[in-house]
Amino acid sequence: MQRLVGKVGIGHVRYPTAGSSSSAEAQPFYVNSPYGITLAHNGNLTNVEQLSREIYESDLRHVNTNSDSEVLLNVFAHELAVRNKLQPTEEDVFAAVAGVHARCVGGYAVVAMITGYGIVGFRDPNAIRPIVYGQRHTENGVEYMIASESVALDVLGFTLIRDLAPGEAVYITEEGKLFTRQCAANPKYAPCIFEHVYLARPDSIMDGISVYKARLRMGEKLAEKILRERPDHDIDVVIPIPDTSRTSALELANRLGVKFREGFVKNRYIGRTFIMPGQAARKKSVRQKLNAIELEFRGKNVMLVDDSIVRGTTSKQIIQMAREAGAKKVYFCSAAPAVRYPNVYGIDMPSAHELIAHDRSTEEVAELLGTDWLGYQDLPDLIDAVGGGKIKIEHFDCAVFDGNYVTGDVNEAYLNKIEQARNDASKVKAQAVSAIIDLYND
Amino acid sequence: MQRLVGKVGIGHVRYPTAGSSSSAEAQPFYVNSPYGITLAHNGNLTNVEQLSREIYESDLRHVNTNSDSEVLLNVFAHELAVRNKLQPTEEDVFAAVAGVHARCVGGYAVVAMITGYGIVGFRDPNAIRPIVYGQRHTENGVEYMIASESVALDVLGFTLIRDLAPGEAVYITEEGKLFTRQCAANPKYAPCIFEHVYLARPDSIMDGISVYKARLRMGEKLAEKILRERPDHDIDVVIPIPDTSRTSALELANRLGVKFREGFVKNRYIGRTFIMPGQAARKKSVRQKLNAIELEFRGKNVMLVDDSIVRGTTSKQIIQMAREAGAKKVYFCSAAPAVRYPNVYGIDMPSAHELIAHDRSTEEVAELLGTDWLGYQDLPDLIDAVGGGKIKIEHFDCAVFDGNYVTGDVNEAYLNKIEQARNDASKVKAQAVSAIIDLYND
Amino acid sequence: MQRLVGKVGIGHVRYPTAGSSSSAEAQPFYVNSPYGITLAHNGNLTNVEQLSREIYESDLRHVNTNSDSEVLLNVFAHELAVRNKLQPTEEDVFAAVAGVHARCVGGYAVVAMITGYGIVGFRDPNAIRPIVYGQRHTENGVEYMIASESVALDVLGFTLIRDLAPGEAVYITEEGKLFTRQCAANPKYAPCIFEHVYLARPDSIMDGISVYKARLRMGEKLAEKILRERPDHDIDVVIPIPDTSRTSALELANRLGVKFREGFVKNRYIGRTFIMPGQAARKKSVRQKLNAIELEFRGKNVMLVDDSIVRGTTSKQIIQMAREAGAKKVYFCSAAPAVRYPNVYGIDMPSAHELIAHDRSTEEVAELLGTDWLGYQDLPDLIDAVGGGKIKIEHFDCAVFDGNYVTGDVNEAYLNKIEQARNDASKVKAQAVSAIIDLYND
Amino acid sequence: MQRLVGKVGIGHVRYPTAGSSSSAEAQPFYVNSPYGITLAHNGNLTNVEQLSREIYESDLRHVNTNSDSEVLLNVFAHELAVRNKLQPTEEDVFAAVAGVHARCVGGYAVVAMITGYGIVGFRDPNAIRPIVYGQRHTENGVEYMIASESVALDVLGFTLIRDLAPGEAVYITEEGKLFTRQCAANPKYAPCIFEHVYLARPDSIMDGISVYKARLRMGEKLAEKILRERPDHDIDVVIPIPDTSRTSALELANRLGVKFREGFVKNRYIGRTFIMPGQAARKKSVRQKLNAIELEFRGKNVMLVDDSIVRGTTSKQIIQMAREAGAKKVYFCSAAPAVRYPNVYGIDMPSAHELIAHDRSTEEVAELLGTDWLGYQDLPDLIDAVGGGKIKIEHFDCAVFDGNYVTGDVNEAYLNKIEQARNDASKVKAQAVSAIIDLYND
Repeated sequence: MQRLVGKVGIGHVRYPTAGSSSSAEAQPFYVNSPYGITLAHNGNLTNVEQLSREIYESDLRHVNTNSDSEVLLNVFAHELAVRNKLQPTEEDVFAAVAGVHARCVGGYAVVAMITGYGIVGFRDPNAIRPIVYGQRHTENGVEYMIASESVALDVLGFTLIRDLAPGEAVYITEEGKLFTRQCAANPKYAPCIFEHVYLARPDSIMDGISVYKARLRMGEKLAEKILRERPDHDIDVVIPIPDTSRTSALELANRLGVKFREGFVKNRYIGRTFIMPGQAARKKSVRQKLNAIELEFRGKNVMLVDDSIVRGTTSKQIIQMAREAGAKKVYFCSAAPAVRYPNVYGIDMPSAHELIAHDRSTEEVAELLGTDWLGYQDLPDLIDAVGGGKIKIEHFDCAVFDGNYVTGDVNEAYLNKIEQARNDASKVKAQAVSAIIDLYND
Repeated sequence: MQRLVGKVGIGHVRYPTAGSSSSAEAQPFYVNSPYGITLAHNGNLTNVEQLSREIYESDLRHVNTNSDSEVLLNVFAHELAVRNKLQPTEEDVFAAVAGVHARCVGGYAVVAMITGYGIVGFRDPNAIRPIVYGQRHTENGVEYMIASESVALDVLGFTLIRDLAPGEAVYITEEGKLFTRQCAANPKYAPCIFEHVYLARPDSIMDGISVYKARLRMGEKLAEKILRERPDHDIDVVIPIPDTSRTSALELANRLGVKFREGFVKNRYIGRTFIMPGQAARKKSVRQKLNAIELEFRGKNVMLVDDSIVRGTTSKQIIQMAREAGAKKVYFCSAAPAVRYPNVYGIDMPSAHELIAHDRSTEEVAELLGTDWLGYQDLPDLIDAVGGGKIKIEHFDCAVFDGNYVTGDVNEAYLNKIEQARNDASKVKAQAVSAIIDLYND
Repeated sequence: MQRLVGKVGIGHVRYPTAGSSSSAEAQPFYVNSPYGITLAHNGNLTNVEQLSREIYESDLRHVNTNSDSEVLLNVFAHELAVRNKLQPTEEDVFAAVAGVHARCVGGYAVVAMITGYGIVGFRDPNAIRPIVYGQRHTENGVEYMIASESVALDVLGFTLIRDLAPGEAVYITEEGKLFTRQCAANPKYAPCIFEHVYLARPDSIMDGISVYKARLRMGEKLAEKILRERPDHDIDVVIPIPDTSRTSALELANRLGVKFREGFVKNRYIGRTFIMPGQAARKKSVRQKLNAIELEFRGKNVMLVDDSIVRGTTSKQIIQMAREAGAKKVYFCSAAPAVRYPNVYGIDMPSAHELIAHDRSTEEVAELLGTDWLGYQDLPDLIDAVGGGKIKIEHFDCAVFDGNYVTGDVNEAYLNKIEQARNDASKVKAQAVSAIIDLYND
Repeated sequence: MQRLVGKVGIGHVRYPTAGSSSSAEAQPFYVNSPYGITLAHNGNLTNVEQLSREIYESDLRHVNTNSDSEVLLNVFAHELAVRNKLQPTEEDVFAAVAGVHARCVGGYAVVAMITGYGIVGFRDPNAIRPIVYGQRHTENGVEYMIASESVALDVLGFTLIRDLAPGEAVYITEEGKLFTRQCAANPKYAPCIFEHVYLARPDSIMDGISVYKARLRMGEKLAEKILRERPDHDIDVVIPIPDTSRTSALELANRLGVKFREGFVKNRYIGRTFIMPGQAARKKSVRQKLNAIELEFRGKNVMLVDDSIVRGTTSKQIIQMAREAGAKKVYFCSAAPAVRYPNVYGIDMPSAHELIAHDRSTEEVAELLGTDWLGYQDLPDLIDAVGGGKIKIEHFDCAVFDGNYVTGDVNEAYLNKIEQARNDASKVKAQAVSAIIDLYND
């Protein structure tokens, strides 16, 4: 890293998006025409196959990998190339972004470097994936930075300027000039609510919302629902599943007036189960990752709190661990509603049939998990918790909970196709000799 | 790892003990005479120079490294060799351990493998360093395991049998027979209290004491002291310094009747500052490691809680971060008393002059740290918190707090010598091209 | 290697061409538009700067490295792209090669893979660099291979079909069809004669000429010159400098009627000095590489034979070694004429001022080398030795000997520029941490 | 290497001796008692099993590997330890060497470093394996070096002092004093003749004999035998199998008055077949390693010359290659007699049943090889060629040719045992993931 030279650059913490994780798909991607462009993004395009055909037919551009990032790069490159400028201006760059918006469907937060000219960042017209920019003052003048989360700015000493609006682009030239422009025809603010539930770090400010505060409010809302539904509850202690649920669990305990205790200890060396490939590996790793402190379970009615329940594999084992540690009754609640549909905008979640709540009632899930009672957050409460603070946001992409995909193009055929692709990819992966890449985002 | 064959084995998570961290000093060590013996230990010998001379003079045994583990191994090897048996029995092994106890001074928890015969574990006569053994039942019969902490047994499916007593040894033959024996002349139970303060994982049971419970009680005792000394305190919120202090901080908040909040978020990718070499690297890394959530600081009087204060570097910066996040007043308390003396029994702590509380009053430390109020646990309270549960232990090695080293041989000359060695070693280290080894134990 | 899949592929034994050797410049290079094209070549373009500008201006194609291979690839890609075919035919491919010939100046032997379509090989219009193709019959039909030297075919069981003519291209489709076409306007057969002197393996057949036979004839011609110029010579023994000169030295000894002896023994572990970077390293390595057998030197008049004299560094030391081994007189002859000018067509030779014979007479060189007599092959003899066998070739690029560069565009300004570039590059290299890549071709 | 400090050291070019080649057996070996001794050797002990038992029973010394070097080290360590000196003198060291000679049987050339005291080198009482020492003068005084071959001294600028006599030891203290001593009871000069045939580099002087001259004489003797047996021979050209046989082949051609030609070209990237593990790999690699130059074979009667014939695999393929290159008749001769028995003194040769000449007549071997005539050197001629120069040596170990093993302890039972061990080891090796280590010694 220290041997890199120059004043601008882009990077990506490698994240296997739908159906891909080989090192050939490590971002950023590069094309040498026009100008030499490097691009990295978070998100996922839902019309990637059509785009792939188009860029071959229009430009004879060959795509080497299964990565939608490479497709996105080539679309952007084509849109910039048709401007046919020896030296592209901000107008050309913004026009190219507008071209991307017109052709690409899905969620995407993008950074791209145009060699010799500057760096552009842009966000999909629904603002599904987050992207912010900030600045810091140095002896050599103002420096800018674009990132997915504000905490990335913090740690490097940059201060947040603001989020990009839906469809908006920011362009920073090599000379240090910064331009922003709305590049979408019909922008709509509908960010992915799951960022607040699970993905984002609590100290992030995302679309003006403190993730931490949003999680506190999730705890409050969930406590109110419990008090509503079970006014005579016999909960002795509230125990979070570390680490994401800690914030909401603490507030939930406060509201319930019940003791909050850290009943599970995490083994720091074991990776987060959410993203480990293969169901078998996941099962084994939960017990290697968490250890129950018997003192807090023995003879008590415990309420376990998690941020969400996806496959249910982890939850089931944790409930079992609580019982083995001596709990009298084991209740379980989720700070998010039941996850019933896959994510298609870039979060690496399982396909529908792997989701424990897919096509199942809360009671059925409770039975499968082996809990004495199961409580899910209600979706309106979640939306209110996230969007009802000082900064009001009324629309979110809540597709994983309600099946309404904001881009409007996701139907059953599409979902079946990605489920198939995922299955095929996992078979290939199983044969691969590549090391497992553990990913953490908390 | 998976290519290893055989039924017995020993290992060590490499931990740079006093004045050493090169790969040549990676444990275990090996000598081929007698039998081929491999040995690993936690702890530190305080008479290593004398022993080193003795083993050369008695056996012409050459020691290659600065590691006391290699010296310990050669003492053990010599003591076993003088029994002069073609096939050593448990009597020979225990006699050798007794010989080690008679000659070695310090804290040590040891495992050694005698090729072709078995594995022996033993503990120093003051029980300074912890060591436990456990078993699991398999299709092939009972299997045994020796480890420093009970959690290591848990994660591999072994159940704790018990701690070794001071001076005791356990010997497991290749045939699976287990023997234990008291091998010390005057054993005395005085375990290192700092394991409970900081080193041990909260879910460990150590010398019969739940580390988690001990930390809860530290929080209680500290709360009582605060209420005693500052009955009219104006604390708005209690905030732990993650992760070790969380347990005691939560209980402290409960006792005070004050809100408990996770005001600091940890960046999981940055290593623990305690063990990073070099003061400069330490300073920089604190801010990269923690991020303050302003909401919990802005306009409030905050009580920050840490497990202990060693150099003070981290604490000072954290207090500064709390102020920058908008705290009105910043109080700080330590679940342990002031650390005033170096550890000589195997914990990699700084030498005296680097300890912020060395030769300073609480007020002086408070001023250096920049806190509005500083509270240390009282030592009798700490001893009571750790040793006053169901299992009573009256004596601990509390040397880092009171300067009374239980082995009786540690004087100012010795402390000066290790301080010098540490300084020299750090210079060598600074020149070395070796990668930094980050260590975590929470 | 064994994990590669597919039926076609190209490769390159990495060879640092003028002013470049970083791993980023490892061949082959790739562009994704059109079709995805991969290209590798031997040789060097003399108008690379102009081409680099042109491809940027016409296509906005960015070149990442200093490698002329990348420029060549982009020129070829552009020429193919302007045909604008969804599925390129052999006509399109040959038209693109014709476009390359029209624009590129220099020596180049190229292979390129057009993803999904086929592999093309082509040779510069002066046939400066060698390129052949061959076939082998397998169960699955005929397979084709393109290579620089026929020996590469031999070792893999292919048989030589023929050399490509100047300007000619061969195109092999994925379906296994093979097409050839003359693609240059004014092709002229003028291959680099230095391949026969030094670079090629003796068992290669190159442009129809057996390299081995050519070297035998060099020995004959040189013997005749010696007999002519020194009819009363007092040579006791002929000793080759291993390995390249062995063939001509043996024949020279036969013609002179003098004993041939292997007086130098090679240490196989030390790389060839010709291509090692840095003068200092070169000096040291000669003595590590060769050892003289005293028996063959003591008291004798020895005639040392080398293939050529470039810098003279090695020759000088070898002459010194011969004297130290006891030789009465040390004569030295070179199977090639005096090397007086740099190579600009892809052979990594030093710049003019580093050549010992640059601007010096034979006598001056003899004195610098410290030999009692120095004999160079005459250029007409060399041309006759190489081109005068069964296959007659009348024109060669002999620029390193006579300064006549066949492409007609190489003037003093150009030579100064590459000399400067080489000096700059060597400074960068000296600082680089990259490992030395030793290259051998004998 | 450049990070090593100190003034003394030993090393070993790793060579898989009988039944061993894992990295755990890489020399040198180390024991820490007494003094810390490091040892490396060439050769093989024939009573290693008995010694292994003895050192365990006397000292309880555990041997970790199958390497006889480790056993030899422990014998030496024991013999030195029983002197029981805090500071060993040269008398102690020589006494220890005498102890080794009294107990160890076989061929061995040893260097050992006694930490803090000095380096000792010694040679087995029959002088089977070679060992020399030399010196160089530096600003800091005289420096000494011990090596297997004189060429190792040459390349580092040392000059040969002399070979060690059979049973002799040389001891160089850390202060730079050099002592030598005859340490064997009945020393006898019987060096391994195969060193001169194949192993040694031609520029080595070994036991006072120039290897190069010895090989010249082998060529002469062989020529005389051919002229004797086939006075009307029709040989057109003599062609050496590169590289070892070149010296004798050239002299053979001179004596016969027949043209000498380099008809085979070596591919430098392919390792020597002699030591590659596995018969299959060997077969394949010969053709990858050599290429025939047709010109020298077409229509001619060729005499191929090799230094020796061991398995015959290579020879057979080379003869086949000569025929394919168009030779009319293919004769073959070996500068050494028929190899009929395995080597037990440290040369990694195949076991008896793999030797093509084992239990076969010359005619039978000729037929198996497919040659039109086969000529072996006669053993008296070989002995005369090697030992009949200026320095006369009358006895050699010629066991591979005549089955007379000079140590007197090698019988059929022993040979069967090592053949079994070799077979077992090769199976293990086939499963191992370790990289192949190619070894060259020419």
